[in-house]
Amino acid sequence: MSEKKRVAIIGSGPSGMAQLRAFESAERQGVDIPELVCFEKQSDWGGQWNYSWRTGLDEYGEPVHSSMYRNLWSNGPKEGLEFADYSFDEHFGRPISSYPPREVLWDYIAGRLKHSDVRKYVRFTTVVRLVTFDESTQLFTVTSEHLPSGETTTETFDHVVVASGHFSFPFTPEVPGIETFTGFITHAHDFRGAESLADKDVLVVGSSYSAEDIGSQAYKMGARSVTASYRTAPMGYAWPDGFEERHSVERFEGNTAFFRDGTSKHIDALIFCTGYVHKYPFLPKDLAVSGPNTLYPEHLYRGVVWDGNPALFYVGAQDQWFTFNMFDTQAWYVRDLILGRSQMPDAEERAASMAQWQSRYAATPTNSADQIRYQADYVRDLMDATDYPEFDIDEVSDTFIRWSKDKRENILGYRDICYRSVMTGTIAAPHHTPWLEELDDSLERYLSPGNPSREPAGTQA
Amino acid sequence: MSEKKRVAIIGSGPSGMAQLRAFESAERQGVDIPELVCFEKQSDWGGQWNYSWRTGLDEYGEPVHSSMYRNLWSNGPKEGLEFADYSFDEHFGRPISSYPPREVLWDYIAGRLKHSDVRKYVRFTTVVRLVTFDESTQLFTVTSEHLPSGETTTETFDHVVVASGHFSFPFTPEVPGIETFTGFITHAHDFRGAESLADKDVLVVGSSYSAEDIGSQAYKMGARSVTASYRTAPMGYAWPDGFEERHSVERFEGNTAFFRDGTSKHIDALIFCTGYVHKYPFLPKDLAVSGPNTLYPEHLYRGVVWDGNPALFYVGAQDQWFTFNMFDTQAWYVRDLILGRSQMPDAEERAASMAQWQSRYAATPTNSADQIRYQADYVRDLMDATDYPEFDIDEVSDTFIRWSKDKRENILGYRDICYRSVMTGTIAAPHHTPWLEELDDSLERYLSPGNPSREPAGTQA
Repeated sequence: MSEKKRVAIIGSGPSGMAQLRAFESAERQGVDIPELVCFEKQSDWGGQWNYSWRTGLDEYGEPVHSSMYRNLWSNGPKEGLEFADYSFDEHFGRPISSYPPREVLWDYIAGRLKHSDVRKYVRFTTVVRLVTFDESTQLFTVTSEHLPSGETTTETFDHVVVASGHFSFPFTPEVPGIETFTGFITHAHDFRGAESLADKDVLVVGSSYSAEDIGSQAYKMGARSVTASYRTAPMGYAWPDGFEERHSVERFEGNTAFFRDGTSKHIDALIFCTGYVHKYPFLPKDLAVSGPNTLYPEHLYRGVVWDGNPALFYVGAQDQWFTFNMFDTQAWYVRDLILGRSQMPDAEERAASMAQWQSRYAATPTNSADQIRYQADYVRDLMDATDYPEFDIDEVSDTFIRWSKDKRENILGYRDICYRSVMTGTIAAPHHTPWLEELDDSLERYLSPGNPSREPAGTQA
Repeated sequence: MSEKKRVAIIGSGPSGMAQLRAFESAERQGVDIPELVCFEKQSDWGGQWNYSWRTGLDEYGEPVHSSMYRNLWSNGPKEGLEFADYSFDEHFGRPISSYPPREVLWDYIAGRLKHSDVRKYVRFTTVVRLVTFDESTQLFTVTSEHLPSGETTTETFDHVVVASGHFSFPFTPEVPGIETFTGFITHAHDFRGAESLADKDVLVVGSSYSAEDIGSQAYKMGARSVTASYRTAPMGYAWPDGFEERHSVERFEGNTAFFRDGTSKHIDALIFCTGYVHKYPFLPKDLAVSGPNTLYPEHLYRGVVWDGNPALFYVGAQDQWFTFNMFDTQAWYVRDLILGRSQMPDAEERAASMAQWQSRYAATPTNSADQIRYQADYVRDLMDATDYPEFDIDEVSDTFIRWSKDKRENILGYRDICYRSVMTGTIAAPHHTPWLEELDDSLERYLSPGNPSREPAGTQA
């Protein structure tokens, strides 16, 4: 009798949940699946979508995982992230808007697994301390700690799937003079809401999603002024009065920020929107993804197989246009490699594939349409390799491309636009209140009837 | 030829520095000392005294160690913490005041080691990931990561000295309704300065040092109101107008805090001054101190030897009236046990000693004078066991007892009082500016001539 393989999944956010779902899907087809242990630091699943009011360190002294703020709404249309095997229609029973607030999205992600029994595989409030690989036994040793009891456990696994994400460990640069800046300072990771920025002069450092959205939140909540400081290029949206972009904050003197263009400005609150780093404190260097946040991280064959040790996998380690359904295709493929339903190519074949994708990536223009199509092809490649339900990836790409344009046209109004589901064909229903006027982000409020006569700001269907 | 013993010291704050100094002191007497490796997560030594403007996670994504704020001044007289082998007079060349700001104290701590070569033992920006003990070899395996490079190193040691402190991992309770509180929320650990609390209604939750001092800082910097919420008993100082204590905050509704006495109050900023937990993420449970912050933690023979494995030591793991010179006596004793100059008692003798100290501790009244005398006797016991320079511990106790009274008489003015050094007999010199009026905490300002005609607010010598 052969012993069952043992698979450790680290993290039960959208990527870890996708991995659990992938195995569940095989099991429902009668496949004998390995023994699964999913380690989750938090007390519930959902990863980033499991919001916490806490910042810095959590109730157990562990770094808080989620970077979400109270009033975060999806910044991409839900039609781009819909699961192919569980639609928004199925979950909510009626059309909802294209840009739901976080509580609504968490409800959707958790809803898919509500009637499955995969939750039994998750060890909550359990943090992985160290993973090592033993060449002689070809097994991983995983040391974990149950946080409430402090109990340490060491056990072995045939495979490890790293699904802990890479938007949890903030990158915060040094700025000369910041040590004597007396205003409020935080990183987007620890930002929880903009209400307390009312009547303040706010500086967001950065020019990507966090700067764009936290700057918009500050504006929405009545900041006296919002300044976004870019390093390379401004975001360039048509910002409203009181919102401006300036080139690189170079130093502080007291609460005055000095910019590269020689200008200066009084600042009350400073929010670093300077991104995140790949950090896997439990992994030795030779097993850890590192480097910049890109669509094709180095040493990951097909974006998921750690080339230096192909018994180790990553789900969700790349920069993301596609999210939930991409994690699904990755998880389905990782599952098939573990089950032996897909063949692990040898090192040479893996190297050739990585080189090909890398060189194509290097040649891809940085405009969003080309970047989106690059990732669409990546997702298609995995989808074709597995039995993940097929969907029209080109249409999803088109949705993302339209979204980029809609944002450019109206950065403070794009969330009022409705799209068509690629999975079901359903046209999204407009939210009863325009995003800029909606101050209550709760699920209850979102699903309440509101103003039934409201027309969509536009339907891109 | 016998191989040298290897000793790992985890942390180079005041406790780790004391351990390095202890070995250095023996080496200067011609003793052959073990091979020392001191692991330090930060890029410099000083521990809590190595201030960082950062909060939450540091530049490498590690939990920020220091809980200090920009404008922290010693909250106990420096005459209580003076090193017996390196006086303030020797360092500064002239008398200074009894309550120096943090930069001045850091300068003093670092000054003691300036002319020694122990810095060579410290591996900076290197975090310990896991410590395990191998029963068969009787060696500890320490896995560490050099943060800038990500390089993981695994090596063995005969002894481990845990000197990472226990005021770095905040305890933050849940409060009903806090998830929708829209004001500023932080823990004392992440508090960096009170200037931005001007004109705000501030709530500090707690009734110990952090609440007392951060509340005072908020008052000093112009908060509209300061409310301190106690759980068991109020601090009971004669607070100025606009500063009050209320019983237990029980819930929030929006930005209104509701207290146990039925009252409520609008709050703009909430600072949890709710203490810290013993947390040693690198230690398995069977090697880790846990439990409350007390003067005699469980399972630590003489406060330093881990009873379950007497090759493992802790320095500075107890609650503290005595600090730097207590760490010294601990480090000297640990050194002597490692060198074999002191005999490690057997398990029975250790148990008897711990039981005796514990039962005396249980019988010690909770008033400060008795608690101080308890710790004085503990320090004396270690001092008597080693060649640490003798000093008059009873006089230090008297200084602490006077300090408690001075605080009670004038919570916002006690830092203007001057004490006499137990080590040198020198009377402290008054700072040129009363603490309540001094807004510049820098070393430069502190050592500047200021107002030479100023008289001390009182001299307790």
